[in-house]
Amino acid sequence: MLHFDTDYMEGAHPQVMRRLLETNAERTVGYGRDEYTKRAESLILDACGLDNGKVHFLVGGTQTNATVIDGLLARHEGVVATDTSHINNHETGAIEATGHKVLVLPSENGKLRAEDVKRYIDDFYRDETFEHMVFPGMVYISHPTELGTLYTLEELRSLSGVCRKAGITLYLDGARLGYGLAAEGTDVTLKDIARLCDVFYIGGTKVGALFGEAVVITRSDILPRFYPLIKQHGALLAKGRLLGIQFETLFTDDLYIRIAGHAVKMAMKLKNALLGRGYRQYVDSPTNQQFFILPNREIDRLRKIASFEPWGVYGEEETPVRFVTDWATKEEDVDEFIGHL
Amino acid sequence: MLHFDTDYMEGAHPQVMRRLLETNAERTVGYGRDEYTKRAESLILDACGLDNGKVHFLVGGTQTNATVIDGLLARHEGVVATDTSHINNHETGAIEATGHKVLVLPSENGKLRAEDVKRYIDDFYRDETFEHMVFPGMVYISHPTELGTLYTLEELRSLSGVCRKAGITLYLDGARLGYGLAAEGTDVTLKDIARLCDVFYIGGTKVGALFGEAVVITRSDILPRFYPLIKQHGALLAKGRLLGIQFETLFTDDLYIRIAGHAVKMAMKLKNALLGRGYRQYVDSPTNQQFFILPNREIDRLRKIASFEPWGVYGEEETPVRFVTDWATKEEDVDEFIGHL
Amino acid sequence: MLHFDTDYMEGAHPQVMRRLLETNAERTVGYGRDEYTKRAESLILDACGLDNGKVHFLVGGTQTNATVIDGLLARHEGVVATDTSHINNHETGAIEATGHKVLVLPSENGKLRAEDVKRYIDDFYRDETFEHMVFPGMVYISHPTELGTLYTLEELRSLSGVCRKAGITLYLDGARLGYGLAAEGTDVTLKDIARLCDVFYIGGTKVGALFGEAVVITRSDILPRFYPLIKQHGALLAKGRLLGIQFETLFTDDLYIRIAGHAVKMAMKLKNALLGRGYRQYVDSPTNQQFFILPNREIDRLRKIASFEPWGVYGEEETPVRFVTDWATKEEDVDEFIGHL
Amino acid sequence: MLHFDTDYMEGAHPQVMRRLLETNAERTVGYGRDEYTKRAESLILDACGLDNGKVHFLVGGTQTNATVIDGLLARHEGVVATDTSHINNHETGAIEATGHKVLVLPSENGKLRAEDVKRYIDDFYRDETFEHMVFPGMVYISHPTELGTLYTLEELRSLSGVCRKAGITLYLDGARLGYGLAAEGTDVTLKDIARLCDVFYIGGTKVGALFGEAVVITRSDILPRFYPLIKQHGALLAKGRLLGIQFETLFTDDLYIRIAGHAVKMAMKLKNALLGRGYRQYVDSPTNQQFFILPNREIDRLRKIASFEPWGVYGEEETPVRFVTDWATKEEDVDEFIGHL
Repeated sequence: MLHFDTDYMEGAHPQVMRRLLETNAERTVGYGRDEYTKRAESLILDACGLDNGKVHFLVGGTQTNATVIDGLLARHEGVVATDTSHINNHETGAIEATGHKVLVLPSENGKLRAEDVKRYIDDFYRDETFEHMVFPGMVYISHPTELGTLYTLEELRSLSGVCRKAGITLYLDGARLGYGLAAEGTDVTLKDIARLCDVFYIGGTKVGALFGEAVVITRSDILPRFYPLIKQHGALLAKGRLLGIQFETLFTDDLYIRIAGHAVKMAMKLKNALLGRGYRQYVDSPTNQQFFILPNREIDRLRKIASFEPWGVYGEEETPVRFVTDWATKEEDVDEFIGHL
Repeated sequence: MLHFDTDYMEGAHPQVMRRLLETNAERTVGYGRDEYTKRAESLILDACGLDNGKVHFLVGGTQTNATVIDGLLARHEGVVATDTSHINNHETGAIEATGHKVLVLPSENGKLRAEDVKRYIDDFYRDETFEHMVFPGMVYISHPTELGTLYTLEELRSLSGVCRKAGITLYLDGARLGYGLAAEGTDVTLKDIARLCDVFYIGGTKVGALFGEAVVITRSDILPRFYPLIKQHGALLAKGRLLGIQFETLFTDDLYIRIAGHAVKMAMKLKNALLGRGYRQYVDSPTNQQFFILPNREIDRLRKIASFEPWGVYGEEETPVRFVTDWATKEEDVDEFIGHL
Repeated sequence: MLHFDTDYMEGAHPQVMRRLLETNAERTVGYGRDEYTKRAESLILDACGLDNGKVHFLVGGTQTNATVIDGLLARHEGVVATDTSHINNHETGAIEATGHKVLVLPSENGKLRAEDVKRYIDDFYRDETFEHMVFPGMVYISHPTELGTLYTLEELRSLSGVCRKAGITLYLDGARLGYGLAAEGTDVTLKDIARLCDVFYIGGTKVGALFGEAVVITRSDILPRFYPLIKQHGALLAKGRLLGIQFETLFTDDLYIRIAGHAVKMAMKLKNALLGRGYRQYVDSPTNQQFFILPNREIDRLRKIASFEPWGVYGEEETPVRFVTDWATKEEDVDEFIGHL
Repeated sequence: MLHFDTDYMEGAHPQVMRRLLETNAERTVGYGRDEYTKRAESLILDACGLDNGKVHFLVGGTQTNATVIDGLLARHEGVVATDTSHINNHETGAIEATGHKVLVLPSENGKLRAEDVKRYIDDFYRDETFEHMVFPGMVYISHPTELGTLYTLEELRSLSGVCRKAGITLYLDGARLGYGLAAEGTDVTLKDIARLCDVFYIGGTKVGALFGEAVVITRSDILPRFYPLIKQHGALLAKGRLLGIQFETLFTDDLYIRIAGHAVKMAMKLKNALLGRGYRQYVDSPTNQQFFILPNREIDRLRKIASFEPWGVYGEEETPVRFVTDWATKEEDVDEFIGHL
C-alpha cells in the first residue's frame, strides 16, 4: 500500500534520529534551559535575520496556536482568520477554549486578502455599536495555507501593512513552512516572514522532526512572558532538549529546506501526472499538498493502491481529495502510483 | 424629539414601579429565595403549562445567554446559531469567553432553518475528522429574531424535532418574547415554546420591567445545578425579590401580553405608513421592530425629528434603518412621525 | 420578627426610589451613555479628588470583582487575597472561571498584612522555579473586610507601597465602603483610597441603592478597554441610567455617608449591649457587621425574636454569629432586640 | 559532575530508543489510531486488570492533569487537593486556566487524609451558603506524592470510599507511578489503583520514556468524549504512535517496573548513607525522591560535586534539599557521591 494521506506518517529524518540517539545518555537540565535548545534558537534567529528575537519550542501545532493567540490577545479581542483556517475548523475549538472568538473572513484559495482585513477593521470602528462586538486584535494566516497555496511577497507586505497601521499583530502558522519556502517560484523567504510578521512558527512535526514547532517572536517587546504561558498551556516539554536537538539538526547545513524541497519535487511530479491524465484541480498548489476533484469511482479504485483523504464530505458523483508528499516520500512510490492513474 | 431607537429607553411599566415602591420597605431574604420570586415562578410555570419546570431570574440578556449556554454545553461542544444571531455579533464574545464556539449557519430573514441544522449535524458525523472539530451541542434561536421575524409553529416543531433526534438541546432567546406572542397572525403560543424547547427565557427588560429575564427550564433533569452557575457568572442579584416582584406583576392579569400588544399595534401603524409612502422593507416583520431601507438624505431629514438607528454601517446612497416601538410608545408620537414622512 | 441577617434585605433608600420614579417615563440612550450616568461619574470623581479617573457602573459585587480582576491580570497572573476574602470563598469560583488563581495569604482579623504580601512576592521571585507558578499580578483587599474590620491609613499606605514597588495593581472591594468611611475613629477617607489604590468600587447594593456598584479607575491608563469587558461579562445594564440615577442621588448632599453613619451607630449600640451582657466578640468590628460567639442555646432562643446568621458551620456548644445593620435599620428594632438579650 | 536534580534529565531507556529507531521508517495513521497504540492500550488494561477501561496517551503531566480535570468537572465544581500538590503549585495555574478552583486541604507528608476530605464535604453541604461556594467535584492525589511518600492500601481504600459515597471522582496523578509500585514495603498494586480510582495516569516521562503519560479511564461511562478534549487542549500528538511504541515497550516483560526498581534501590542506598552520616530527613520517602535538611554550608560544598535542588527557598542556616534517582542512575555515581558525604 502506498501512502499519500498526510505528512506526519513516519518518524523523523534519519539525521534527527541519529542525533537523538547520540545524545540519549547525556544529562541536561529540563524545560528548554539546556545548551542544545540555546544553539537551536541561535541558528533559527540567524536564519531569520533577527537580532532581537526569541525562539520557544513547543510540541504540536494546535497547542502552539492556542498558546500564542491566547498570549497575544486581550480579553475583549478575537483573531481574524479565514473560513478555511485550521484554527477555525480542526482544533476542536482550542482557541475558543481560551476565551477568544475566531473572526471569520472569506478566503481566496485558502488565503486571506489584505483588503478584506482592512475593510473589516474599518467597518468595525465605524459601527456605532463596536464596543458590543469582539475587537479584531490580531490576524492569523497560514503559509502554506490549509490548501497548500502560498502568499506572494506583495500579499504578505499588504497584510503586514494593514496590521501595523491598525496596531494589531500578524501571526503566521508555519506548520508546513518548509514546503512553502522550498516551493518553486515563491518570492517569500524566511527573512521576509521574520520582518513582516510579529510572531510565526516553523513547523517541525511535518518537516523532518518527530515532533516540534519553533515559535519565533520577532521582537523582544512582544510576548515577554511567553514562557510561563507555555507551562500553563501544558505545552512545556520536560525533556526540552529533545526539541533543541531536533531543530539544531534541521537548521544545520540547510537540512530543513533540502528535505522540504524533495517533498515539493515529488508533489510536482504527482500534480503534473494528474493534470496530464485530465484530472481537475480543486485548487492549484505549489507545495506538498495537492488537491484534485475525482469521480467517486476513481477514488474507490485508487484507494486500493494508495491511501489518501477525501477533503470534507463525499459528494454524490465526485469528491475533492488530497494527496500529500513529505520529506520521506520515495520517488518510486510516486512513479508506481502514477502508473495506476 | 421622538424616539424609535430601541425598546429599553424608559424605566418600567407604572404598575411594576408601583409594586416596587409598595414593597420597598419590606425585609426579605436575598438571592431569589423570597416569596415574591416563588410566586413569580409559579405564575410563569402555569402560563407555560409546565408541571416539572423551574424558573430562574437573571438581570440581563447577555448574561442569561452566557450562563445558560455555558451550563448546557460540554467542553468539546459549541452552540449552533445564525450569522445574524445576537450571541454571534453583539455580546463582545461572551459565549467564547466561557470557552465555547458559536457554530454559524446562514439565516433566512433572521431565522435558522431546520434543514440546515439537520444537514450540518449529519455532515459533521460523516466527516472522518469530526473529533477534531467542535461538536454541535445545542441550538440557539431567538423569537422574535434580531430582525423582528417569527418562527411558525411548524418551523419550531421541525427545529425541535431535529434537536431531539440528534440528542442536543434547543434554547430560545426571548429577549422580546412578549412582542412575538402578541403579534397578529402568529400561531406560536407560550405553551408551544415550553413544549418544544428545552430552555428559553422570557424577556422583561424590553417588555415592561426595569430589568430582568426569566429563564424557564422545562424539565427538572436539565441544568440541575443552574443556581451556583448563576452565582459564578456574577448574575445572581442580591435583592433577588426585585426580579420576583416585577415578573409577578407582569404575569398577573396578562399584563405582559397586553402591553406587548400595544407596542405591536404601534409598529404596524408605522409599518403601514412607511409602506404607504413607498419605502422598501429590509425585512417584513410582524413585531415591534421595523426595518426599512431609506435614502441617506431621507435618514438625515427624519433624524431631526426622531431618533432611530442605522442597521449596520451606512451605505453610499441608502441604508437599512430600524424603528422600534415598545409598551410605552405613545400613539400621538407615532402619528406625529407619520406626519413627517 | 426582627432582622439582622444582612444589609441587602430592603429595597432602596426612599430618596433613591423617588428619583427612579420621577425619571421613569423619560427616554434616554442605553448602556450608561446617558446624562444621569455622566453626572454620577462626575460627582464620584469629585468626591474622590480624581482629575484623570473614570467610573463605570455595574450591577453586583461578584460580577464587578470578576470583571475588574479579569481585566487587570495577564493570563499567567493570579490575584493575591486573604483566606477570608469574598473572592476566595463566596463567589462560586467566579475568579477561577475567568482563568485566574486566587493566591491565598493568611489574614489577621480579615485584613491582609503588607509584610505578608512583600514576603510572598520576594519569595516568589527568589524561587528558581517561579515560572512554573502563578505570578502575583495584583492584590485584592476589601474595606470594610468580610469581618467588618478596617485598614488604617498606615496599613493601606504600606500595602500600596508594596504593590507599587512590585509593579502590580491594588484593587479594593468596597461592597460596604460607606460603612467603612462612616465608622468612628477611621483615618481613611475616600480620597485616600482613590490615591492609594489603582481600582476600587463603591458599593451601592448594600448602602442605599436597589443595586449597583461604582467602579473607580483612578488613572486613565488603567483598564482603557474596560467597557467592552463589562459587556463580555454580561454586566452591562441595558437601562444603564438606573445606575446613574441611583449614584447621582447617593452622592448628592452626602446621602451615601449619612445613611451609612446611621447603620454604624445602630451597630455600635448593638455591640455595646452585647458586650455589656458579657458576650464574647469573634472579632472587634467598628462597622455595620458585628461578630459574636454565642452558646448554641442562646442562638436558638434569640432566633425566635430576630433572624441573624451563623458564621460558618455550627460548633458543638457555641457558634460565631453575625449581626448586621444597615441604612434602614430602625433604632426601635435594635432596642427591642437588646431588651431580649 | 554527578546529577541528582530530577528524573527527566536523560533521553529514553535504550530499549525504548531501539524500538523508536526500528519503526522510524514505517508509515502509520496519526493521532493514536495506529496498531502500536492499540497494543499498548491492551497491555496496560491487562496489567490493570480492567475489562471495560480505556487508555489515552498524552505527552506531559501538566497537560494531562488539566485535560482530565477539565473533563471530569462540571463548571461549578473544583478539585480537592493538598497544599503541596503539583496542580496547586507548579503548573502555572493550568487548572484555573480551564476555569476550575483547586480546593486546598492540608497534607500530611504530602498525603491527603480521607477524614479531611470527608469533613470538608460534610461541612460544605452543611453550610447554608454552599451554593455560593465552589462544589467539591473530584479529588486529586499523587502517588508517589510530590514528597516521594506513598499511600497505603488502607488509605487509598478510605479515600476511594469517601469519594464514592459522595458521588465524586478520584483521580490519581502517577507521574512517578513506577517508582511507587516498585517501592519496598508498599502494599498498593497497579490493580488496586485501577479498582479504587476512577481515572489515573501512568507516568512515562520520568520512568524510561522520552515523554508520555498513559491516562487510564477505568470504566467506559467516565469521560466518554475524552478524545476531542485532548485535541482541544493541544495534547493530541500528531505522530501518536510514538507514545504507543514507547508504552508497548515499557509494558512488555515488566520493563517499566524493573527499571523503576533500580531507581528505588539507588535511592535507598543514598538515603541510608545520608542517615548514616546523621543528616536529618525532611520527610521519610520509600521512593526515588529523597528529602533531607542540610546546613547551607554543606549544600554549597556538595553542589560542587553533584547537582541537586533546594526544596523551596533557602533558609538562613539550613535548607531542605531533594536528591532524585531514576532508571538511568549509575550505582558508581551514587557510591562516588556517598564517598563525599
